[in-house]
Amino acid sequence: MTVADLSERELVARISSRLPPAPSWLVVGIGDDAAVAEPARNRLDVLTVDSIVEGIHFDRRFVPPEAIGHRALAVNLSDLAAMGAEPRLALLSFALPPALPCNDFDAITSSIIRLADKHHVHVAGGNLTRSPGPLVVDITVTGTAKRRNILTRHGARPGHDVYVTGTLGAAASGLQALASYHNGTLPTTLEPCIRRYLYPEARTRCGLLLGRNRAASACLDLSDGLADGLHRISEASGVGMLIDAGTVPIEPGARDWFMDRGLDPVLQAMSGGDDYELLFTVDPRRRSRLVSVTRHGGAPLTRIGSCMAEKELRLRRRLDDGRTIEEPVPGGFSHFR
Amino acid sequence: MTVADLSERELVARISSRLPPAPSWLVVGIGDDAAVAEPARNRLDVLTVDSIVEGIHFDRRFVPPEAIGHRALAVNLSDLAAMGAEPRLALLSFALPPALPCNDFDAITSSIIRLADKHHVHVAGGNLTRSPGPLVVDITVTGTAKRRNILTRHGARPGHDVYVTGTLGAAASGLQALASYHNGTLPTTLEPCIRRYLYPEARTRCGLLLGRNRAASACLDLSDGLADGLHRISEASGVGMLIDAGTVPIEPGARDWFMDRGLDPVLQAMSGGDDYELLFTVDPRRRSRLVSVTRHGGAPLTRIGSCMAEKELRLRRRLDDGRTIEEPVPGGFSHFR
Repeated sequence: MTVADLSERELVARISSRLPPAPSWLVVGIGDDAAVAEPARNRLDVLTVDSIVEGIHFDRRFVPPEAIGHRALAVNLSDLAAMGAEPRLALLSFALPPALPCNDFDAITSSIIRLADKHHVHVAGGNLTRSPGPLVVDITVTGTAKRRNILTRHGARPGHDVYVTGTLGAAASGLQALASYHNGTLPTTLEPCIRRYLYPEARTRCGLLLGRNRAASACLDLSDGLADGLHRISEASGVGMLIDAGTVPIEPGARDWFMDRGLDPVLQAMSGGDDYELLFTVDPRRRSRLVSVTRHGGAPLTRIGSCMAEKELRLRRRLDDGRTIEEPVPGGFSHFR
Repeated sequence: MTVADLSERELVARISSRLPPAPSWLVVGIGDDAAVAEPARNRLDVLTVDSIVEGIHFDRRFVPPEAIGHRALAVNLSDLAAMGAEPRLALLSFALPPALPCNDFDAITSSIIRLADKHHVHVAGGNLTRSPGPLVVDITVTGTAKRRNILTRHGARPGHDVYVTGTLGAAASGLQALASYHNGTLPTTLEPCIRRYLYPEARTRCGLLLGRNRAASACLDLSDGLADGLHRISEASGVGMLIDAGTVPIEPGARDWFMDRGLDPVLQAMSGGDDYELLFTVDPRRRSRLVSVTRHGGAPLTRIGSCMAEKELRLRRRLDDGRTIEEPVPGGFSHFR
């Protein structure tokens, strides 16, 4: 049975039947022309939308439907985390190929609802349409934050330290491994990397804590990789950065994968996207505020460099003979291909 | 030049440069991980998302880019109108085929911004991605309404009158005419119908007035046609309806178009979608409240029937010999094809 065998109403009912009870602030949920919600008291609304498209962001040959749903929501939760916001409500907009099996549809929506639940997000509405081509999962997520806790990209100043959460390169190597091995047996050492590609975890808790104790001066999420993130904070804040290549936290399995293929692990980890870690800057005088973020945020924090007045992005490497060299941080401009 | 020749940042800049100054309630607009807005005082948030997909909702051979953008926003504004909400903010999520000319991209976004401006909506963010297939324009719109002014689908009661705004059948005949004549010359009598298909007008003002003076007991917008709308209010409210075929307001050019082709104008107008008129029910004791809606709503209101306790949808027709017959309202269940 495929989605073409059901009516839109039946497909919506398959989603509704899986939803937990609606929270008290949701006045009108799925099934009307729009959703209606009470705003949170003394909070601002934070809103983001992101879509994942078959053939661009995922390949159904090796990305299971559970991962499609999970990723589609996670990328949005990651955007809210980068703003220091607490996620609250999601709208799901799908373009479905008629041949999509109902089981896959159910697996996609169930994984969205499961991840939503984990982050205290309620699915409040959406839209279903057919697609004559790829499967498109477009999700809007709203959240809330106090005005003073909002994290933007433009507060970095010369002298501020640059940090990332977690480890990098995992998703990029996981994707490469999946794409090259999906008909064979995958090396078990890559399992954590593959899992990170398929089921990224948004750093909701870290983002919230960084916003609440006002530790970070700028923040964004690494959907398009560290190099891209550095360029974006740099441009938005009007600062340069010096990054120490030796400190960039690379996922161990990813490092091995890249080295085995003769690729530079640092450059690969910097250019690879989909890790959904947070990149943020901290005024050194507020460094002590990171203690609670480290303790309760659920991810290690690593200092990888610092901001400087000179508007350049430089990567410093230590050579085997003890000398250091500096090179420009790659990337920062890519065609919309 | 196509969108593939530009970076995502350059494409975003082409949108930003066309935006009017941001309203004071917008704390963070385009260019960060998410948008941030102050909630409106003493109002609820109303949120909707809708997408239009090339090959399903429009054919680029005869739908110009200006109409694609206009329609993509209008369908969302129509959803908010049906809730009695005042639109406020939009997020644009596009999946763009790389071969899309930049001029078309600009025309789509300009028409969105133009219509947004007309309805006092600000474009606050969004997402751009590539599409390996069709052009997809997915828009999320939020609005606000007082709790007591929200219009839902479930307040219709037996004895309430059934109304529609404007005229029906226009968009359906306009689309048929465009599809069959797009290589030739179109009859000028169909111009209003074609215009209604390409550039639908959301009944924002009508919806707001119906909500503010609490005239309507239930309301929805006719994105999928009158027959579908009747079924939905009927199901949500648990009432039946008796519709008088002779009163259904059909656009004159559409009536001629259907009759010339041997089609029943009433059934065509009832099943044809895309008119984006409002369907609503009114307690007859509140009928006088419609005076101000008629005066200031910008669209005629027509009573087409009434609600009844018996849960059936019947269409009453007057035959030439003076007798009346009743038949079931068609539709109400369609496969997701």
